[in-house]
Formats: sequence, structure tokens, C-alpha cells
Amino acid sequence: MNTTSQISQLLQGELIGNPDIVITGPSRIEEGGAGTITFLANPKYEAFIYHTQASAVVVSKEFKPEKEISATLIKVDDVYQSLSTLLQLYEQQEQLPIGIATTAFVSNKATVGKNVSIDHFTVIYDGVEIGDDAIIFAQVYLGKGVKIGSGTKIYPGVKIYHDCVIGNNVIIHANTVIGSDGFGFSKSEDGSYLKIPQNGNVIVEDDVEIGSNTVIDRASIGSTIIRKGVKLDNLIQIAHNAEIGEDTVIAAQAGIAGSAKIGRHCIIGGQVGLAGHIEIANGTMIQAKSGLSSSVKAENTRLYGYPALDYGHYLKSYAYFKKLPELAEKIKKLEKELDKILNGNG
Amino acid sequence: MNTTSQISQLLQGELIGNPDIVITGPSRIEEGGAGTITFLANPKYEAFIYHTQASAVVVSKEFKPEKEISATLIKVDDVYQSLSTLLQLYEQQEQLPIGIATTAFVSNKATVGKNVSIDHFTVIYDGVEIGDDAIIFAQVYLGKGVKIGSGTKIYPGVKIYHDCVIGNNVIIHANTVIGSDGFGFSKSEDGSYLKIPQNGNVIVEDDVEIGSNTVIDRASIGSTIIRKGVKLDNLIQIAHNAEIGEDTVIAAQAGIAGSAKIGRHCIIGGQVGLAGHIEIANGTMIQAKSGLSSSVKAENTRLYGYPALDYGHYLKSYAYFKKLPELAEKIKKLEKELDKILNGNG
Amino acid sequence: MNTTSQISQLLQGELIGNPDIVITGPSRIEEGGAGTITFLANPKYEAFIYHTQASAVVVSKEFKPEKEISATLIKVDDVYQSLSTLLQLYEQQEQLPIGIATTAFVSNKATVGKNVSIDHFTVIYDGVEIGDDAIIFAQVYLGKGVKIGSGTKIYPGVKIYHDCVIGNNVIIHANTVIGSDGFGFSKSEDGSYLKIPQNGNVIVEDDVEIGSNTVIDRASIGSTIIRKGVKLDNLIQIAHNAEIGEDTVIAAQAGIAGSAKIGRHCIIGGQVGLAGHIEIANGTMIQAKSGLSSSVKAENTRLYGYPALDYGHYLKSYAYFKKLPELAEKIKKLEKELDKILNGNG
Repeated sequence: MNTTSQISQLLQGELIGNPDIVITGPSRIEEGGAGTITFLANPKYEAFIYHTQASAVVVSKEFKPEKEISATLIKVDDVYQSLSTLLQLYEQQEQLPIGIATTAFVSNKATVGKNVSIDHFTVIYDGVEIGDDAIIFAQVYLGKGVKIGSGTKIYPGVKIYHDCVIGNNVIIHANTVIGSDGFGFSKSEDGSYLKIPQNGNVIVEDDVEIGSNTVIDRASIGSTIIRKGVKLDNLIQIAHNAEIGEDTVIAAQAGIAGSAKIGRHCIIGGQVGLAGHIEIANGTMIQAKSGLSSSVKAENTRLYGYPALDYGHYLKSYAYFKKLPELAEKIKKLEKELDKILNGNG
Repeated sequence: MNTTSQISQLLQGELIGNPDIVITGPSRIEEGGAGTITFLANPKYEAFIYHTQASAVVVSKEFKPEKEISATLIKVDDVYQSLSTLLQLYEQQEQLPIGIATTAFVSNKATVGKNVSIDHFTVIYDGVEIGDDAIIFAQVYLGKGVKIGSGTKIYPGVKIYHDCVIGNNVIIHANTVIGSDGFGFSKSEDGSYLKIPQNGNVIVEDDVEIGSNTVIDRASIGSTIIRKGVKLDNLIQIAHNAEIGEDTVIAAQAGIAGSAKIGRHCIIGGQVGLAGHIEIANGTMIQAKSGLSSSVKAENTRLYGYPALDYGHYLKSYAYFKKLPELAEKIKKLEKELDKILNGNG
Repeated sequence: MNTTSQISQLLQGELIGNPDIVITGPSRIEEGGAGTITFLANPKYEAFIYHTQASAVVVSKEFKPEKEISATLIKVDDVYQSLSTLLQLYEQQEQLPIGIATTAFVSNKATVGKNVSIDHFTVIYDGVEIGDDAIIFAQVYLGKGVKIGSGTKIYPGVKIYHDCVIGNNVIIHANTVIGSDGFGFSKSEDGSYLKIPQNGNVIVEDDVEIGSNTVIDRASIGSTIIRKGVKLDNLIQIAHNAEIGEDTVIAAQAGIAGSAKIGRHCIIGGQVGLAGHIEIANGTMIQAKSGLSSSVKAENTRLYGYPALDYGHYLKSYAYFKKLPELAEKIKKLEKELDKILNGNG
């Protein structure tokens, strides 16, 4: 049971209003009922704060109400960080009992750390090593020699092929596949394709989170590498020998082709496509759905389009694209007028 | 055993030809052999009707043959609906025995209705409720507190995280994931990302069908909602807190970003991308591969492009895009001619 | 243990340098250490050959070094094919014991060939036929009547719905779904959708490889067909009744809509979208992210854009798209100058 004043203290906030309301959980600003706490981060939702039924609202220190607000306010430095803290306070995580379910298959040549949970119908092969406090949900497959770090959480149905290495405090969501063969073939003279064996692996460093139904292929030689702190959304394709730099964030359904190398702190939008063998500088931001076929050398560039241009450039060109019918009309008119001048036509 | 006259009666059609042919099953018009019944709905395939080996063809009442047709015709009001009825007549569905496979894990704190099938290696956790006549195929995972309505069918490998709610007569195809964490992080000062817990759930209402390998993330707070009658194809991404309106249809590989709200009776093409926090009016139609970054307020708008414009506008602008090399040439010529006039050059 | 001279013989190459180095495995040219063999195929990486620590490098017979190279060279006709041979030599494949895991469910009405491996928690239903030497990994689902050819490899978590037919020497990677219902509905008068049963199946011919988390839907009537030698990458959507021609290659996240028919030896880039009911001629090449909405009749056409144009045409038009702001400026200037001439304004 937390009161508004206790929550304000937890968030190191400034309380304006009633310090004694008992808060049962967080709510969304457009839905929040009595006894809940909500938040205002995106200014698009400001109108709701003047009517919300929530008992308390977390707002930015900069927030200046335009009308009266009946809810108690808690003013904080960083609304999203406070929201995160609040959500942790009320989180109800799925818990698994510690130990190995009797219905799991765990090779006697695997090494399992302390306080590990391994759930039903999971398969763990020879030579696998699992660090302390790891949670392996149901129906997971860990091929020979896979390493799983401490505190790492593998959700149901994830398949990790042999010899891949997953770091500490990694989260991998359901039905994601790690370490399947890269897409490599050589063309025969008769036009058929010969498989190039994919002998490498995948390395996922610490603190990475990977969404559901994503695929990261193993390298042909060496490793496909997902660096520390990377966040990958759902349904993403990472091809063989790609490398994703530290703290880079990639949204859903993006695709990174083979041997592409993405720098640190990049933000890559949903459904973006990156060609193979290109390098992307640190801090690059790529607008959703863009296609990138060449390297980006300057840091912190913002890109947009297909193929991608500088963000502002694409917007400007596209604004004229919209006006192309009128521009074509103008050209026609100019031609006619000029023809009149030159040839006396008309 | 059904004869052409029996089928004609079933379809409330008008029979032209032989009423006594025994029909063994449906076929495609370009392949159909003797004893089969086929259909003509798409005029693109009309040429085949004059040569088909099928014994009978379902056609629209409006259909006027241009040549002689040897097959028996059954004329109906709605060819697709009749096809659907016909296919049901000959359907061979995968059947599961009623009851719980001895190899499944079902918590003794779960509630299972009447006539339910639960297949091998499926995991059903505490507090799960499953309605009557539901069919849960093999290797499915239902986390704590998940609710499954009556008559709902969950195909192999589907994973549903804790506390999600699935309605009646829902179909969810293989390896789809429902309720995995939304993609929410707050940026720390050192550039790393802090996970924002995702405490909400997913609600899927009655009569929804969801394809294979699709992902619907749980809300951060509140619910991600798929309304009654929605049809989702394969490999679709639905992000946290999105809402899809009644009877909206979304084709494969489309992506709906966080908190987007799509109206009723919309048709969204394959590989379309919708930005977060936008609202789409009822009846909106979005052409395949389009990208939408702002709200659509007028109902029944048809959109196309990246970013999306009015459908006709995009087509027109793109027609001039194709002619850009010529337009540029014309501008150059105009400049030269004008230069001649103004400066006497040339 | 292989020496450089043994490897050179195996590759039918020409050795320049030390024939007696023991090679422990392959490496990438930018990382390769002593005792490894690397290769130079893509000229982008040529700079590395002059500094590589690898003991040997496979190069093309045409390769002419610009500086001195300390590594031993093996000159071959086809570097990629040699690489493939080399990788096979050092491959460490995941091996399964022959036989059926005691934890698998195999119907006694299924037929299993010689030397077959079936791993833990796999489900094999009535009427399934599995050819000799097939390998079925863990947690796979084969519905009633599925046929699997000889030497075929099905990775963990793959789900194949009833009555689908998989050929010989096929490879299907983890969590891919084959034979789920096509996306077919007819619209009722009240705006809701009625499911059209999908009574057909999927046929995958010999020597096909399919990546992870890909979906191939069953036909409504007849078969969705993947012809001999086709290579499909990860996260691809193949809709009902589509047909992919022999030795066609499709990169990740591409989507092929219903009843599309793709010819032989096509190359389809990542994230490409193909509309339904179109036909693509043999040898068509489609640039990544393109969208195709009409048939391609001429063989060996190269396409690009959204909707796709001839490759060179799109590049040219896009070059002018980039210059649209300048072109618009020029038009404005022309208008002003002409106005001056015609009306004496200025």
C-alpha cells in the first residue's frame, strides 16, 4: 500500500495536493479511475489532465497547468524514468519456481547455476552453461554448447542453435530464433544454389533485450554480434556477420543485411532495411520504412527515404513530389508561352 | 456424396446443365478435373471457363458467357460466399480427441470447460480459464491467468503471456505471440536504456482470426485491444496500447506502432507501417507498403505512398515522378531558349 | 588435420607459398589469426589481404596483388565455391542420435524411415510419412498426413499443418510455419467477415531451404508450391496459392501475396512486396524494398521502386527527385522572367 506522499518521496518529486491518498496502481491518463496514479509525458495528451479521474498525476517540473486540476500532482525531473519506477512498484511478473521441471530435458553434460528456473518441455543439450538466477521458460531449445549469462530471461518457445553465447541480464521474448544458418549460397553453373555452411555463431552481450519472433542468424565465419545494451523489437531480421553497436535501438520489422555494421547509440525505425556490407556511424537516426544502401560516415546524421537521403532533404523533395502535377502544368504553360513568343503561335 | 442439383440447392443457385453429376470436391478453374466443381469470381480468370475440365462451375448471376461452356453452371448471388459454403462442405479439418493429453502440463489451479481438447506438450498455468469447446493444439503456452473463450482454437506453438484475455470463437495460428512486453525504455544520462515495465495486457475480442508468427505486445498500462471480428494476417506487429477497431482487416507484415488507434472496417494492406499515437477513421483503406505518420480524420479515405497521400494524388504524382528526367530536360530547354531571348545567346 | 597443400589439392587450386602449414579452421580476412585460412571474394575487402594474420588466403585466379602478401595464397576458379568446400571441411553440425526420443509423441499410424532422428517433445500425427535419414529436431509439430522426404532436416519449433508435402533434402529452420490457413474471407452485408475454408495444402519440392520464422500458407483449393531448389530467407510471407519457381531466391521479410506466380531463377530482395494474382517472368531481379503490383512479362528484367519501375529508370527519376527543390526554383525563375517579357513586370 503506497500513499501519494510515499510515492512522491520514491520519485524524489514535489507533491502538490493531498499527500494521503492510497494508490492502488498506475493508469492511463484517458482512462484513470479514482485511487490510481497516472502521468503526463507527451504534450498531445495534456487536455486529459484537466478531466482525469485519476487521484494523482506525475508531471514534469516544467509543466504549467492552463486550468485548474483536481488531481494531486507530483512534479519530477524525468517523467518517463518516474513512470518506469512506478511501474516497477506495481509490476506483477510471471514467476517460475526455482529448479528444473521434471518434464524438461536437461543433458547431464549441461552446467546449471544457482537459483535457476527451467520450465516444462524445455530442451537443454550437452555442454550448455546457464548462469545463476537465469529463468528459462517452457518449450525453449538450447543447442549444444550454448552459454546463458546470469540473471538472463528466456521466454517460451525461444530456439537458440548450438554454440551461441548470451550475456548477463539479457531478455529474449517468445519464439525468437538465435543462431539459425545465415543465408549463404554459391551459384552453380546449372543455375542451382550450393549451400555455404555457416560455421560461426551469435554473440549477444549483457543487458540486451530482444522482442518476439525476431531472428538473428549465425555468422558464416566468426560471429554475428549484438553489443551491450542493444534493444531489438519484434520480428526483426539480423543477417549473418552483422554487428549492432552498444545501446542502439531497432524498432519492429527492421531488417539488417549480412555483414552490415551499425554504430553505437543509433535509433533505427520500424520496417527500415539496411543493405549488406555497409557501415553506419554512431548516433545515426533512420526514419521508419527507410532503405539504406550505402554507408553513413558522419555521426548523428538523420535519414529518411528510399533510398534514404538527409531527413530534411527528403521532406523537402517529397513536398515537391506532392506538387509534381502542378509543376508539370507550369512547365507546359511556360512552353506554350515561349512558343508564342518565338513562333508567334497561339 | 453431393450432386450438382444438391449443391445448387445448398447455394440457392440456378442450375444450367446436368443436375445429376456427383461432385467429389472443389478445384481451381485452371486445374479442375472431371467430377470437381470450380468457380469464377475474378474476371481475370474468365478465359479458363471455356476450357475447364471441371464438371461444374459456380458463377455470378451477372455472368454472360461469350462462348459455349461444356460444364454445368450454377448461378449465384455472391460467388465468394458460395465458395465458402462449398469449401465448408468438403472441409477436412484437423481433429483432436476431446480431453487433455497425458503429456500436457495443466496446473490444478486452471479451469477447463466442457468438450475441450488440450494437446501434447502444452503448458497451462495457474488461474487460466478455458471455455467450452475450445481446442488448444500442441506445444502452446498459456501464462498465469490467461482467459480463453468458448469455441476458440489455438494452433501449435502459440505463446500467450500472463493475464491476456482471448474471446469466443477466436482462431490463432501457429507460433504467434500474444502479450510479450511492449517496447518501452527510458534513456539514462549515460545513453543506456532503462526498461519501462509493461504491466498491462492484451484483449482479443470475439470472432477474431490471427495468422502465424504475428506478435501483439501487452500494454504498458491498460490493454492493447483487438476488437470483435478483426482479421490479422501473418507476421504482423501490433505494438503496446494499440487498438484495432471492429471488422478491420490487416494484411501480412504490416506494423502498427504504439498507442495507434485504428477505426472500424478499415482495410490495411501488406507491409504497411503506421506511426505511434495516431488515429485512423473508420473505413480507411491503405494501399500495401504505405507509411502513415499522421492521423486520418475523414472516414473512407483511401491512401497510398510513403508518407501516404490520397490514393489518386499519389498515383498522379508518381506518374510525373516517372517522367522527371523528361521534365528536367524541358526545364533546361526553356532556360536556354529564354536565355537566348534575354541575352541573345545561342 | 589439413595442410595448405592438402587444402589446395581439395580446392583444385594453385598454391603460392608454404605448402606445409597446418590449418586449424577458416577465419574472416579482417580477423584471421595464425593457423587459419581466409578468403578474398569481395574486392571491398582487398586492403585486408596485405595485413592479415591468417596463414593462408583463397583468392581468385584473376587476383593480382598490388603489394607484397605474407600469407600463402591458394588461387582458385570460384572463390565462393571453394569457401563452401572449406567450410564443409571444418563444419561442426549439431548431431542428433538416430531413433525416436522417448519424450516425443509419434502416432502408431505414422511411418518412419531408416536412420531417422526424432527429438524431444516433437509431435507426429496419424498418417505422417518420414523418409530415410530425415532429422526432426525438438518441439516440431507434423499434422496428420504430412509427408517428409529423405534426408530432410526440420529444425526446432517448426509447425507443419496437416497434409502438407515436403520433398527430399529440404532444410527448414526454427519456428517456421507451413500450411496455416490462407487469409481468405468473404464480406457479409453487416460488414463482418466470413471465413473461407482453406482446403488445399503446401508442396515444398526437393532441395529447398527455408529460413526461420517464415510462413507459407496452405492453398484455399489446390496447392501453394515451392519448386525445387528455391531458397527462402527468414520472416518471409508466402500467401495461399502462390507458386515460387525453381532456383528462385527470396531474401528476408519479403512478402508474396495470394496466387502470385514467380518464375525460375528470380532474385527477390529483402522486404520486397508482390501483389496477388501477378506473374513474374523467369530471371526477374527485384531490388530490396520494392513493391510490385503488376506482372512482369520480359525475362531477366531488373526492377526497383514503389511501385517498381525498370531499375535504371527508377535510379534516374530518383536522382531528379533529389533535385526537385532546385527544379521548382528554376520553374519559378522562368515564370518571373517570362512574366517580365510578356507584361513588362519586374
